[in-house]
Amino acid sequence: MKKLLLLGISFLISLSFGLKAQEKVERWNRVEFVWNTSFKGNGYQDVEFKAIFIHSDTTLIIPGFFDGNQTFKLRFMPTRLGTWKYTTISNVPGLSKKTGTLECVTPSAQNHGPVKTNGLHFSYSDGKNYYPLGTTAYAWNHMGEALQSLTLNSLKNSGFNKIRMCVFPKNYDLVKEEPEHFPFVLKENKRDDKGNMIPVWDYSQFNPKFFQQLETHIEALQKIGMEADLILFHPYDKGRWGFDAMPQEINNKYIKYLLARISSFRNVWWSMANEWDYVKSKTVDDWDELTATLIKSDPYRHLCSIHGSTATYYDYWKPAFTHVSVQDESPAQSPNAAAMLRNVYHKPVILDEVGYEGNLKSRWGRYSPETLTHLIWNGIMGGAYVTHGESYMFEDHRDTIFWAKGGRFKGESWKRVGFLRQILEDGAGPLSLSDVSRDNVTSSSGKGQYLVYFGKQIQEFWTFNLPINNGAFGKLTTGTRFKVDIIDTYGMTIQTLPEIFETGKENDYRFYDKGYKKIRLPEKPYLALRIREIR
Amino acid sequence: MKKLLLLGISFLISLSFGLKAQEKVERWNRVEFVWNTSFKGNGYQDVEFKAIFIHSDTTLIIPGFFDGNQTFKLRFMPTRLGTWKYTTISNVPGLSKKTGTLECVTPSAQNHGPVKTNGLHFSYSDGKNYYPLGTTAYAWNHMGEALQSLTLNSLKNSGFNKIRMCVFPKNYDLVKEEPEHFPFVLKENKRDDKGNMIPVWDYSQFNPKFFQQLETHIEALQKIGMEADLILFHPYDKGRWGFDAMPQEINNKYIKYLLARISSFRNVWWSMANEWDYVKSKTVDDWDELTATLIKSDPYRHLCSIHGSTATYYDYWKPAFTHVSVQDESPAQSPNAAAMLRNVYHKPVILDEVGYEGNLKSRWGRYSPETLTHLIWNGIMGGAYVTHGESYMFEDHRDTIFWAKGGRFKGESWKRVGFLRQILEDGAGPLSLSDVSRDNVTSSSGKGQYLVYFGKQIQEFWTFNLPINNGAFGKLTTGTRFKVDIIDTYGMTIQTLPEIFETGKENDYRFYDKGYKKIRLPEKPYLALRIREIR
Repeated sequence: MKKLLLLGISFLISLSFGLKAQEKVERWNRVEFVWNTSFKGNGYQDVEFKAIFIHSDTTLIIPGFFDGNQTFKLRFMPTRLGTWKYTTISNVPGLSKKTGTLECVTPSAQNHGPVKTNGLHFSYSDGKNYYPLGTTAYAWNHMGEALQSLTLNSLKNSGFNKIRMCVFPKNYDLVKEEPEHFPFVLKENKRDDKGNMIPVWDYSQFNPKFFQQLETHIEALQKIGMEADLILFHPYDKGRWGFDAMPQEINNKYIKYLLARISSFRNVWWSMANEWDYVKSKTVDDWDELTATLIKSDPYRHLCSIHGSTATYYDYWKPAFTHVSVQDESPAQSPNAAAMLRNVYHKPVILDEVGYEGNLKSRWGRYSPETLTHLIWNGIMGGAYVTHGESYMFEDHRDTIFWAKGGRFKGESWKRVGFLRQILEDGAGPLSLSDVSRDNVTSSSGKGQYLVYFGKQIQEFWTFNLPINNGAFGKLTTGTRFKVDIIDTYGMTIQTLPEIFETGKENDYRFYDKGYKKIRLPEKPYLALRIREIR
Repeated sequence: MKKLLLLGISFLISLSFGLKAQEKVERWNRVEFVWNTSFKGNGYQDVEFKAIFIHSDTTLIIPGFFDGNQTFKLRFMPTRLGTWKYTTISNVPGLSKKTGTLECVTPSAQNHGPVKTNGLHFSYSDGKNYYPLGTTAYAWNHMGEALQSLTLNSLKNSGFNKIRMCVFPKNYDLVKEEPEHFPFVLKENKRDDKGNMIPVWDYSQFNPKFFQQLETHIEALQKIGMEADLILFHPYDKGRWGFDAMPQEINNKYIKYLLARISSFRNVWWSMANEWDYVKSKTVDDWDELTATLIKSDPYRHLCSIHGSTATYYDYWKPAFTHVSVQDESPAQSPNAAAMLRNVYHKPVILDEVGYEGNLKSRWGRYSPETLTHLIWNGIMGGAYVTHGESYMFEDHRDTIFWAKGGRFKGESWKRVGFLRQILEDGAGPLSLSDVSRDNVTSSSGKGQYLVYFGKQIQEFWTFNLPINNGAFGKLTTGTRFKVDIIDTYGMTIQTLPEIFETGKENDYRFYDKGYKKIRLPEKPYLALRIREIR
């Protein structure tokens, strides 16, 4: 409980931008209320300000926030169609008891709402399937404006629909840029024992410019269909700014302030940390506490996970985490390995770092485009999702390394991710292995809907055959007729075969074509077959 | 709380077999107290009888049990050296307030106490490493006496140190024998709609003979160094006896009675179920309740897990479970896949069914001996354990199928398990991958102690090289000298090479011999290298 320190008589101006009384708001769009007031005291810590939004039996408590310059804001994302009533509550009389209504209307075509989990997969809030095919640019948002625009343009012209990015700036090999803005107001610069300049922050004062810039980026990402998988903490600071080692009380305040500002953005996801176990200042109990703070601060329950170093698995079964977001190559080594994680956690799995396509000396940053594309396919076939990243070393100071700074894609796998996304979106639904732990190449997205992926195996012929088991979609039967497309996952071609295949009798857990028809394959690796029932 | 129904005056005889006042008992051996009494009422449900055993700050409450024939018994396994005092408590006056002491002395050479978890592995209570290398004979204990002896003899002459076996008899394809004894007294036989004879059990009366036979078997297994991984419930009943579908109250009573009888046997493990998800009468909540009953009934906290059908993972992170006991082939497909499960659960992992060596039509029962041996090695290299099983079809009515009935081993992989066990016991400790998720062939058991396993890969030469990372054992350094043995894991030979290898400078995460010495390998699959530092 913060003590209210209002000195003198405050004077409040109430403004409501983007919304007039009874104005219509699209479902899952954002409404912003703005009030200006002059008062003495610290708006970040001395003012309590929230609103209660009510829609029939739904009640949401939405925190407001101080945006500097005597301005208080409150942002709301209506989650249900129809009339919402609101009342504000504050320890500042002029911010209190503001009431009104707003009418939530059907969203426009490009607005599908926040992404939610849907069994072992994901969908938008309107039910449309969402297949996370993300990339990584940890600190693109802390580069100059020109580079930020370039990055947004690259993303717009890619097939990605998610980006992992850090709220705090990054101080790491290959990315040491000083950001334009910082989350707190600078108190002073000190010199440490070695003569290095160390900033001392006034933790009682956030810097709205820092957060406004982040909001601009989230908004820009939303416009191009990208989810912002925001990393709240990371270890890449190394004593430079100290954001990895703030007092726990400040960590909690930061989360509350950040979420008051941005949880109304429908395309945000929360990643508590990147490589949480490398943040040496925090224990597992600390992370659990911060995660609890986050969930309490999020009226919308956006997706939430946490990411560790290689093969370091947090206890993802804790109810706080909506999905698994793990750094590990092992689950991407085969579809069955990826499927294991789903079977273990009973939650959707994203392999948010299996290494990056690039040419670094570090082994995490030197996969061939073929290898990264292959790992992404392995994950997808196993019913999990694999995040892309690209780490081609910059050639000069005008050049960038996408993994850290964004910029232009230089690799090849990013294009294949777009190709894969199209295949998924043309399919009947998300994939799961048809015959888990027994058949490592066949996955299905529905009754009569298969993908077979051969990975690195090269073969001249393939005899048409499918397993009798088809996951949750029942069993295959005799006399089912199929068309087959040969997909070159790396060459990005799809060739539809003229023949029709028809299942004969069951033969040792599998069905072959009744005439044992075979398919001639190009003698290449990374081929897949799309097999679809003719109805 | 059960109501006491003692009719008339009970008369009690107190006897103490195997123990006189102040007699010495080996640590982790079993002491049995016996009292005979004639009384009216039901000894199984109307008598409460337990003893409190105290040793300085350790207090154990040990339940007694009715053994039929007016006999009550109480069994105790002293867990600490020195003097234990005991007092009995009962609602039968003559069973109550019996007091005495016993002196617990240093165990003999073959007695290492119960197996416990030790980090991600196992050890006996005296600290000796225990590497679970078990086999499976679900219903051997329900076959005739001659076959039981044959099975015990086969186990004695094998390298196995654990067997999975069911408490209840089994009614399944290839094993339909009627057991000699049943756990309950028969009330009557009824005919169902189809005319089948259905036994109706008197659940208020256990049949001591059934349990006495089980105890004889556990004791016999202990004598030959075998842990009894006892399966408390299973789905293989199919309406014949109904032990898979008893009322939950009876399930709980059965667990309490069983544990009162046998938790003092140091070589018991609890497996709540085999294929729990196929037991259609029980929900996950039921299993959790039964597991809670079990833990409450076990003063010694023996190892406890639960086993599901293929790729069905129970929530093994629940504190009740000491380790993971899972049916799934996927984790045995590579050392990295096996290691994933350890990383996820932070508990030891036993793959208690990856399929069996045999010649059945069912795909779970037709692995080649090479394949099963290979899967066992994959698990071991990944720091997990893989259970053996053999399912060669019986040829006539005198023949058996080991997986269900026991008998003689007919396969080849069982010998390779003995060979592997020797290698493990000659090693420095349990194995873990040296460079997890990066190097899928190198595992280490300590500083300077490696096994490299090539699996199916055949190669003429191997250039000496090891990863810089060595798990928890620190990093490898330049100038370390090694001797190498070539192990044929299937051929069961070990060949020590005369050369000494010495690490040069670090080379891209690895160390090679300073002269890039290579080793000529036999051109065979399933080879391993044992690489040990010379100190």
